Amino acid sequence: MILAPVVNIAEICARKGVKQVVLSPGSRCAPLTIAFARHPEMQVRTVSDERAAAFIALGMAQTTGKPTVLVCTSGTAALNYAPAVAEAYFQQVPLLILSADRPPEWIDQLDGQTIRQQNLFGQHVKHSYTYPADLSHPDSVWHSERMVSEALNEAVAFPAGPVHINVPLREPFYPTPGEELKYSKEVKVIEEEPQAYALSPAQSLKLQEEILKYRKVLVLAGQQQQDEALLQSIHAFAETTEAVVVSDIISNLYALPEAVRHQDVIFANPDQEQLAKLQPDLLITFGKSIISKALKLYLRKYKPKAHWHLQPAGLVADTFQSLTKIVRCSPYSFFTAMAASVKTDLGFTAAWSAADKSAGELLQKYTLEAPYSELPIVARVLQQLPKKSKLHLANSMSVRYANIAGLQAEQQVEVYANRGTSGIDGSTSTAVGCALTSSGIATLLTGDLAFFYDRNGLWHNYLPQNLRIVLLNNHAGGIFRLIDGPKQQPELAPYFETHQALNAENTARDFGMKYTSVRSMEELEQALPRLFAAEAGAGILEIFTDSAANAEAFEQYRKTVRGLKLL
Amino acid sequence: MILAPVVNIAEICARKGVKQVVLSPGSRCAPLTIAFARHPEMQVRTVSDERAAAFIALGMAQTTGKPTVLVCTSGTAALNYAPAVAEAYFQQVPLLILSADRPPEWIDQLDGQTIRQQNLFGQHVKHSYTYPADLSHPDSVWHSERMVSEALNEAVAFPAGPVHINVPLREPFYPTPGEELKYSKEVKVIEEEPQAYALSPAQSLKLQEEILKYRKVLVLAGQQQQDEALLQSIHAFAETTEAVVVSDIISNLYALPEAVRHQDVIFANPDQEQLAKLQPDLLITFGKSIISKALKLYLRKYKPKAHWHLQPAGLVADTFQSLTKIVRCSPYSFFTAMAASVKTDLGFTAAWSAADKSAGELLQKYTLEAPYSELPIVARVLQQLPKKSKLHLANSMSVRYANIAGLQAEQQVEVYANRGTSGIDGSTSTAVGCALTSSGIATLLTGDLAFFYDRNGLWHNYLPQNLRIVLLNNHAGGIFRLIDGPKQQPELAPYFETHQALNAENTARDFGMKYTSVRSMEELEQALPRLFAAEAGAGILEIFTDSAANAEAFEQYRKTVRGLKLL
Repeated sequence: MILAPVVNIAEICARKGVKQVVLSPGSRCAPLTIAFARHPEMQVRTVSDERAAAFIALGMAQTTGKPTVLVCTSGTAALNYAPAVAEAYFQQVPLLILSADRPPEWIDQLDGQTIRQQNLFGQHVKHSYTYPADLSHPDSVWHSERMVSEALNEAVAFPAGPVHINVPLREPFYPTPGEELKYSKEVKVIEEEPQAYALSPAQSLKLQEEILKYRKVLVLAGQQQQDEALLQSIHAFAETTEAVVVSDIISNLYALPEAVRHQDVIFANPDQEQLAKLQPDLLITFGKSIISKALKLYLRKYKPKAHWHLQPAGLVADTFQSLTKIVRCSPYSFFTAMAASVKTDLGFTAAWSAADKSAGELLQKYTLEAPYSELPIVARVLQQLPKKSKLHLANSMSVRYANIAGLQAEQQVEVYANRGTSGIDGSTSTAVGCALTSSGIATLLTGDLAFFYDRNGLWHNYLPQNLRIVLLNNHAGGIFRLIDGPKQQPELAPYFETHQALNAENTARDFGMKYTSVRSMEELEQALPRLFAAEAGAGILEIFTDSAANAEAFEQYRKTVRGLKLL
Repeated sequence: MILAPVVNIAEICARKGVKQVVLSPGSRCAPLTIAFARHPEMQVRTVSDERAAAFIALGMAQTTGKPTVLVCTSGTAALNYAPAVAEAYFQQVPLLILSADRPPEWIDQLDGQTIRQQNLFGQHVKHSYTYPADLSHPDSVWHSERMVSEALNEAVAFPAGPVHINVPLREPFYPTPGEELKYSKEVKVIEEEPQAYALSPAQSLKLQEEILKYRKVLVLAGQQQQDEALLQSIHAFAETTEAVVVSDIISNLYALPEAVRHQDVIFANPDQEQLAKLQPDLLITFGKSIISKALKLYLRKYKPKAHWHLQPAGLVADTFQSLTKIVRCSPYSFFTAMAASVKTDLGFTAAWSAADKSAGELLQKYTLEAPYSELPIVARVLQQLPKKSKLHLANSMSVRYANIAGLQAEQQVEVYANRGTSGIDGSTSTAVGCALTSSGIATLLTGDLAFFYDRNGLWHNYLPQNLRIVLLNNHAGGIFRLIDGPKQQPELAPYFETHQALNAENTARDFGMKYTSVRSMEELEQALPRLFAAEAGAGILEIFTDSAANAEAFEQYRKTVRGLKLL
């Protein structure tokens, strides 16, 4: 018999709207496994590698906006969650982690799969709970039920994030054969009506007055999900104020037609006169991290007079070393309140617009004329993405190339990337999680190191047929050949680039995926429409390039940018 | 230019006898990478998947008995070390983890690959240090040098374990081209002359008197490395006192000819009369965990009057719920001092001896007659292991089958297993680390879930030609079909066993390993000598079985054991 409160964890999750559960097999966690597996409202999948399981759960939560439940057994299982948990923490994605544990008296007694699981995720969860080991007292039952509600409320409250409940469990772990689990109708659920994070009328007035001090207003969004209402509010703000809006690819603001989208190209040009013309006096930011290092370095050097950051709650980063004001409200509320509040200097707006146009033309020309190498390859891949599809950008060069190449407003592609911690450790799994909870095509753009690092993301029985993997294989960590320091070191090849010999053909065979490889732009052009055909099924398109040739072509791109007057 | 104290971390490690370094590529860690890569006394390898890197380092440290240095970049890289670090902590294996970090002012500022790295490993390291971010003051240099000595001293002091130094690093990360690194001749090194952990003459006398109260003395070792001097001291103790010595396979005591080695068979027989005859009045234990759950449950029920545990320092587990005395000395010192101290009841010794003999005969008969299934397969594999070779037993069923099947004293095989935490997450990598630091053949015995979970252990450029992988592939977590609870649940197949479709042929092709598969006992008998031939090179022998057939054959084994009178 499994204890009723443990069974009811699944019931409380269901009442709070959770649908997706990712389990990893184990004996200690059997009561949780069975409670979720038998619950009629849960979609339960099992993934053996806990590192991959957690990133798959993260991908699901990114896509659905709801917490995914993770269940694992005791011991190092939960430690394998840690990279995804840290990513979820910094990317603000809700997860509920249920780790089975031995009861406290058996910790450190040399029994198998026993570690010190309390507070296992340290500073990378919003809260860590210990489930009652004994449930004989009614207060313990109240505690256990309250805890699950609290944890789920905490997971979705701004800023969303992972919450951990460590669940000590005693034998028996299994119901007797034929025994039915009873989910209680009386189970306690605490709803939480979330904070609206709207500015008060008085605050709006004050900020409307204050913003009049500035004439060069730059809006810059960090990573965030696609959000139609927010887009409309920014569009209205930009239209009425002529403020400049810069769209990093992971901000999903590229869907605004007026957004500047070639900032990575613009700030690769060190022309001082140009840089000075683009300096804002008021920088307004919201969201999380941005990709463009060139833009970051620019803003740290050419500091605005004021930098307002819009964030409902939580610690605020001073990314550009210029933060002067934190506005505690939703970006939507701010931009709605501030529409028509200020008139931006038209010279400033025009300078950005001209720079973006020149940069876009340069990029288009480079992309068409450049030899077969990764940047023009990525540009072509992005152009061919199915409309309204989803795109996961793996870390290291994939996301950087994509931020240079950019997307067009009309593509309506939703962009995801693990930029909370920017690791290469879980991109494949995260994309799988996205595909599993999406109806249209979900594409992963990845390099070879990130792909093979996480190929266990494909090791389960749920291969989503809408998944497409575009794999840039240069057999190395090509990024190290593109940055100045390591490329001049004798250690470049053995210790930085780290040549790796794999290609994905065997992997595709292992997992029953369609496989195509290309070695030229012509082959690529032919392969892309086939890959992205709706009925094509799960596939890997492996694009072989040479790391040294990529570096040379990228150097050529940089030279071209440096040589051109954008303004 | 890289700062001199950072360069000198490698020098201090060299002076303290460290030779093995496992790096994972990154930019933030470049100063450490280069400092170790250029040091003439270091053997440096680079492994991209940090989880695998850390288990490889663990395998090296297990085998060499010296700390391995791990170097990784900032962000989630170090979190991927966490499973191996916990394993090293509980298995008491020395590691020095150097994680590069951003300097403190850049934490939580939305820069890439930045998490909260201080105390990242929580309670699973012996100590966690923060390297000085600024080294301009001479006291900071003293601090930095002292810290590296302290960390290495701590890593090897009993109980050995992992130690973490988080190293914040500012740019520049790379020496200027052509710049030579200077390892200082004046660098500070603190030697530590270790505690001998010997009993004093007075303590010896006292214990010699005290032990006379007991007549049924049972010696039981948990996991430990092969140790010739210790073996001799136990041998002398057993010979002079007639005490019974039980050898769990991971205790490496099976090399004693008199050791009881079929305890797993003996205690699978619930005959009350027999069980009563084997009850000790004094249990003497040392080392870490034991495999045999049957023996654990037996001793928890048939408690000895006294249980002495020999352990030089640290928290002591009460594994059998009968602990009465902790003796703070080395087992060697204890057994040397206690030789000829007591005369064990010869009836007790004879009962154990008879039970072991009967169990051994039963096992031999079963192994010869049983249908093609995992237990007789493992028995045959163990018999064929090259003499004096090394054997790594993966977790879940591999190590359990091996503990049933046992090894013969004359085989002189050294046995390793990750029984600190008993995870399946790093067995392949750990075996690779063992092979990389061994001269003879190193064999990994593993199941399919453990093998594919950690196949990134093979993803690097250092495939050791002395590695042999024996893979028991039943396409599932077969353990769940062998234990009573889950095998009766409707969730058995989808959520516990977790069918997985992979076989290792593509993996062998990916990594350039020889590959053979077998599906019958005859094929197995033919394949084993070829696999274990000294010149055969790195290879995978994949043994396909059926999970249900294994369960049936194992049930037959259990029945046979239950039916037989051992005494």
